[in-house]
Amino acid sequence: MRKRKVAVLGATGTVGQRFIGLLQGHPWFEISALTTSDAKAGKRYGDVTPWHWSGEMPANAAGMTLQPTSADLDAEICFSALPADAAEQWEAALAKTGHHVFSNVKTHRMDDDVPLLIAEVNAEHMHALEVQRRKRGWSGSIVTNGNCSAIGFALAAAPLHKTFGIERAVVTTMQALSGAGYPGVASLDALDNVVPFIAEEEEKMQQETKKFLGTWDGKRFVEATFAFSAHCNRVSVRDGHTETVSLTLRGSPSPDAVKSAMRDFRGRPQELKLPTAPEHPIHVRDGRDRPQPILDRDTERGMAAVVGRVREDPAMGIKYVVLTHNTIRGAAGASILNAELLAAEGCLGN
Amino acid sequence: MRKRKVAVLGATGTVGQRFIGLLQGHPWFEISALTTSDAKAGKRYGDVTPWHWSGEMPANAAGMTLQPTSADLDAEICFSALPADAAEQWEAALAKTGHHVFSNVKTHRMDDDVPLLIAEVNAEHMHALEVQRRKRGWSGSIVTNGNCSAIGFALAAAPLHKTFGIERAVVTTMQALSGAGYPGVASLDALDNVVPFIAEEEEKMQQETKKFLGTWDGKRFVEATFAFSAHCNRVSVRDGHTETVSLTLRGSPSPDAVKSAMRDFRGRPQELKLPTAPEHPIHVRDGRDRPQPILDRDTERGMAAVVGRVREDPAMGIKYVVLTHNTIRGAAGASILNAELLAAEGCLGN
Amino acid sequence: MRKRKVAVLGATGTVGQRFIGLLQGHPWFEISALTTSDAKAGKRYGDVTPWHWSGEMPANAAGMTLQPTSADLDAEICFSALPADAAEQWEAALAKTGHHVFSNVKTHRMDDDVPLLIAEVNAEHMHALEVQRRKRGWSGSIVTNGNCSAIGFALAAAPLHKTFGIERAVVTTMQALSGAGYPGVASLDALDNVVPFIAEEEEKMQQETKKFLGTWDGKRFVEATFAFSAHCNRVSVRDGHTETVSLTLRGSPSPDAVKSAMRDFRGRPQELKLPTAPEHPIHVRDGRDRPQPILDRDTERGMAAVVGRVREDPAMGIKYVVLTHNTIRGAAGASILNAELLAAEGCLGN
Amino acid sequence: MRKRKVAVLGATGTVGQRFIGLLQGHPWFEISALTTSDAKAGKRYGDVTPWHWSGEMPANAAGMTLQPTSADLDAEICFSALPADAAEQWEAALAKTGHHVFSNVKTHRMDDDVPLLIAEVNAEHMHALEVQRRKRGWSGSIVTNGNCSAIGFALAAAPLHKTFGIERAVVTTMQALSGAGYPGVASLDALDNVVPFIAEEEEKMQQETKKFLGTWDGKRFVEATFAFSAHCNRVSVRDGHTETVSLTLRGSPSPDAVKSAMRDFRGRPQELKLPTAPEHPIHVRDGRDRPQPILDRDTERGMAAVVGRVREDPAMGIKYVVLTHNTIRGAAGASILNAELLAAEGCLGN
Repeated sequence: MRKRKVAVLGATGTVGQRFIGLLQGHPWFEISALTTSDAKAGKRYGDVTPWHWSGEMPANAAGMTLQPTSADLDAEICFSALPADAAEQWEAALAKTGHHVFSNVKTHRMDDDVPLLIAEVNAEHMHALEVQRRKRGWSGSIVTNGNCSAIGFALAAAPLHKTFGIERAVVTTMQALSGAGYPGVASLDALDNVVPFIAEEEEKMQQETKKFLGTWDGKRFVEATFAFSAHCNRVSVRDGHTETVSLTLRGSPSPDAVKSAMRDFRGRPQELKLPTAPEHPIHVRDGRDRPQPILDRDTERGMAAVVGRVREDPAMGIKYVVLTHNTIRGAAGASILNAELLAAEGCLGN
Repeated sequence: MRKRKVAVLGATGTVGQRFIGLLQGHPWFEISALTTSDAKAGKRYGDVTPWHWSGEMPANAAGMTLQPTSADLDAEICFSALPADAAEQWEAALAKTGHHVFSNVKTHRMDDDVPLLIAEVNAEHMHALEVQRRKRGWSGSIVTNGNCSAIGFALAAAPLHKTFGIERAVVTTMQALSGAGYPGVASLDALDNVVPFIAEEEEKMQQETKKFLGTWDGKRFVEATFAFSAHCNRVSVRDGHTETVSLTLRGSPSPDAVKSAMRDFRGRPQELKLPTAPEHPIHVRDGRDRPQPILDRDTERGMAAVVGRVREDPAMGIKYVVLTHNTIRGAAGASILNAELLAAEGCLGN
Repeated sequence: MRKRKVAVLGATGTVGQRFIGLLQGHPWFEISALTTSDAKAGKRYGDVTPWHWSGEMPANAAGMTLQPTSADLDAEICFSALPADAAEQWEAALAKTGHHVFSNVKTHRMDDDVPLLIAEVNAEHMHALEVQRRKRGWSGSIVTNGNCSAIGFALAAAPLHKTFGIERAVVTTMQALSGAGYPGVASLDALDNVVPFIAEEEEKMQQETKKFLGTWDGKRFVEATFAFSAHCNRVSVRDGHTETVSLTLRGSPSPDAVKSAMRDFRGRPQELKLPTAPEHPIHVRDGRDRPQPILDRDTERGMAAVVGRVREDPAMGIKYVVLTHNTIRGAAGASILNAELLAAEGCLGN
Repeated sequence: MRKRKVAVLGATGTVGQRFIGLLQGHPWFEISALTTSDAKAGKRYGDVTPWHWSGEMPANAAGMTLQPTSADLDAEICFSALPADAAEQWEAALAKTGHHVFSNVKTHRMDDDVPLLIAEVNAEHMHALEVQRRKRGWSGSIVTNGNCSAIGFALAAAPLHKTFGIERAVVTTMQALSGAGYPGVASLDALDNVVPFIAEEEEKMQQETKKFLGTWDGKRFVEATFAFSAHCNRVSVRDGHTETVSLTLRGSPSPDAVKSAMRDFRGRPQELKLPTAPEHPIHVRDGRDRPQPILDRDTERGMAAVVGRVREDPAMGIKYVVLTHNTIRGAAGASILNAELLAAEGCLGN
């Protein structure tokens, strides 16, 4: 496939940095622009960005000059890690001028013509783009990926919903600090503590999960209808959201049947062997105390959901633990995989 | 009330140390013996105990000579923080020789003539002691308190079960490191991590909760019958177990009705104004991000459950967060309060 | 002593909160005003302050209305925890209108007529106030306390400088997160990390230490002249600055002589039995692995320096470890003790 | 170079695991044996080893059967991560039977015919092996690497000692938890704490540094003679020892001269382009707050020392901060590099 130029919008933040790290050596995409707020525009990326990941900042990114976000960026694809107000201002403008925007921001997630996409879970939602372009008169497009906790839940639950059907779900998250960006959570709130609240997080999880696990009927999204409750907590972990999940599934399948459904799960990214796709979207561990962030978050370069402790739930039917890397599978990596999917499927032009 | 001599069994561990700290200046109890395994017996407490709590070790305890645990301790009351095998060996032997044992160990918790007591929740279970003494021919007695996570859940849920009736409950715990004792959890497992497994913890929670919230019918314990599921996790917090709770209650009461039931809750310890009793067994906070271990675990000297975020649960009906100090309300403090209750009720002789 | 009205300037921050906590039930001082930036002025303290310390916010403070900082506060004494620019604007103005300002801010610390006071170490520096008032025409006064790390070093080193004389000192600090205020250090910088840099901290330590350990000759401050080097680091600790100290002392005293000098040390606060004074300004521990923040920072309600591991230094002569509670002994508590000293010595009027 | 069989002694611990990880895909070495204490011998490595590093355990190691340590292992090279008593028993026995032992244990470090080797720093010490073999009648050999903190200090200081000469040094370490092995440091000692003591660590640093920076005169080791003092502390960091260093150098070189000496430093591993050698043994960072464990410990796959904040020291002359990855550069990686050096130099036979 020919190389496409890509821009990273909001390149200096924690998710922006993940995009830059993950795009190093990408076979299909090359970074042509890095954008930021006006205050830093015109400066060298390496001079104004506090690099948060181990190892050196990639040299080619370090040497690029930051641009203000605008509608005439020299890029086919825009990976957006913008703050909400800037996303409001620029994502639609960029789509209008022919850019394909893959956004991590919540602004357009619930729009009725914008795919909220997990490449393995609801690839058919991409067909909403035809409606989107027609209705809005755009030559480009907007595709969103969801809240990091919602992605983790939905990726592991997707084969269960497809195979059995979810009737009811209760989830408690223990979310990593990097999910709040930088500076994000104050160390005095994180050390020796749990904060049992993250603004809007439970609402996003509850809403987005039903769009993820719903369908596109050719004209509109049809949401999944199961009852869903989320408790969202911040814990003292750098990367990796851990979620405890209790589910009622139709037909009361056994833990072994649940594990098989998860282990057998494959999506379009696996069929197409996309560059960023994990070989197995869900890894089911047998160890009695897994998954753990420190041990499991980097499974398949952070792109797989890792599940453990699948067992009977006396109140709900089935319970398990799922872990996903929140800034890779839950953010930057998910967007890149979505872009790969649409490129491979011919949805981004030739 | 006259002063009673009390022994602390297993005095050098983390819970043993809490007993010693909490018994300083106690109006009814004075420490007459500290016991330990044979290896440390005969040594000065202060010389062989790595004191884990802030401030100096209490001077009178520091100067006491450790004794091996035995059946002829000079004490009316024995607070047991023994390891399981030593508890197996000594608790019944001590009860037989006339000691009143208040145990933190699981050995006798589920025995059908042993109260599993939370002083505010099921004080009437103390009447099982009549059966216990008659059946076993003991002049003393054994009363247990439960697993620390089970106590936290049951204390906050008790008024809801009494007022409305619990039909179904799903709980996820985020438990403190001190619950595993010392040395306990390795720092390499705790730092930047969550461990989603604690051996036997979910089983204990599921079992004990139903005994706590059940009744004593004059002859036997009748367990509560609701469906109950627990997910138990270890997080990087020193003290204080945080639990997210989803409940289905009979009659679907509103969050306000739930909060009122919790705030109005009082038990025998409050009526009797026992020395260690909190003024309010349950504090309901209105702040949107409470309770937090660092801010709330010491409420009422660590003896109160602190509840926050009471709200509707789309899948279950009601949800909230509850925090309790695991080595105080969940262990040593709970035992002392149980002993105070039985002393005040005349169950320990004159 | 009659009760004096005191204001806390910058009352909503971490040090402001410590002032409020420590002034609860103070026998000589009562809070008459709490000030803040204009944005929060007019609001109830309890409504706009994220309280960071365990337990509830003191009720009387919670109910007070925040005032903008101004020169006509109704208070004799002002405890200042202002940001640097506000301190620049208001501290001198308040002194001019008759207030006695006890400041935690660096603005006036190195002024040649402003005492930089540790009550036990250099009480005679208070006589600089006569020059200050005369020269500046103030009816009030400004007294400062130093940087928290400098106070910790100087308090423990003072008896050594007096008894033997310091020739050379190398210090490495491992400083607590609370020293940076709130939100202060980002959790992503604190977790699993050490940051070997704190802006201006080494400079402050190197400068202020020499003023602390110098003298007032009746007309001017004469600085101590020893060579001094500080390495300042931020570590993942809530409260309590730990410092490793290597010293060359005149006459090469033995570790035992050093320990005796520290243990015997008393200052004016101890002679006058001031309310906030620790009984022993320096506690020397014999345990081989002490002091530790978690175990020792609350010694004497956080007002004592705790020293351990006094031993020979192969390169310098003597080495040891010193720990002080940075927001109590190193900030709010130190200011209150300074105010008590000056009140008791009659320097604040009748 | 032909592939040599290597054994990892003490393969289940944290350093043993690092050996296994670092030897994956090694061009010269292949693992032929993994040893352990008798209790685990005969079991599958993957079944009895709690793998502590992110990602899966290497599959070939997982499938190997653990052997008891013995003198007739099928391996030319033995990498030893044995406990001290087992090292005492087996390292010399293995050397006697023709094995080349590269040890991380302190047992033989200070022996007068055993190289204490940092491949870049004192490669000429390898000639002591001729004396060792002749004197002891061994067909094999023992080479040791030092304490992890000593290696970090010595690697960064080596070019300064060679170029200028060290007269005096004061070092404070902030050491990672992994240095204590697993389970190692209790989480209750690590969380919100600094422990200012590590058993025998300061003694090891003070002794070994002088052997590292000394010479081999053809017959014996001649130690460096400068005055050296170490303060060793444990902090809440997973990997990476941070050290603050104050030095007096002959001729009082400027910070720029010091930085140049460090940046220009190369050793035999760089000349020989050994597989595990870092390109630059010392990286000097210009950022004002570097090095930091989270950002810098993985520089050059954990094999480089990272230095920052080189500046004048008012008491000693020069000061800086150095960080090294303690289980890679300070342990397993250092041993492997030593083995590569001796293999390349022809000291291990053909």
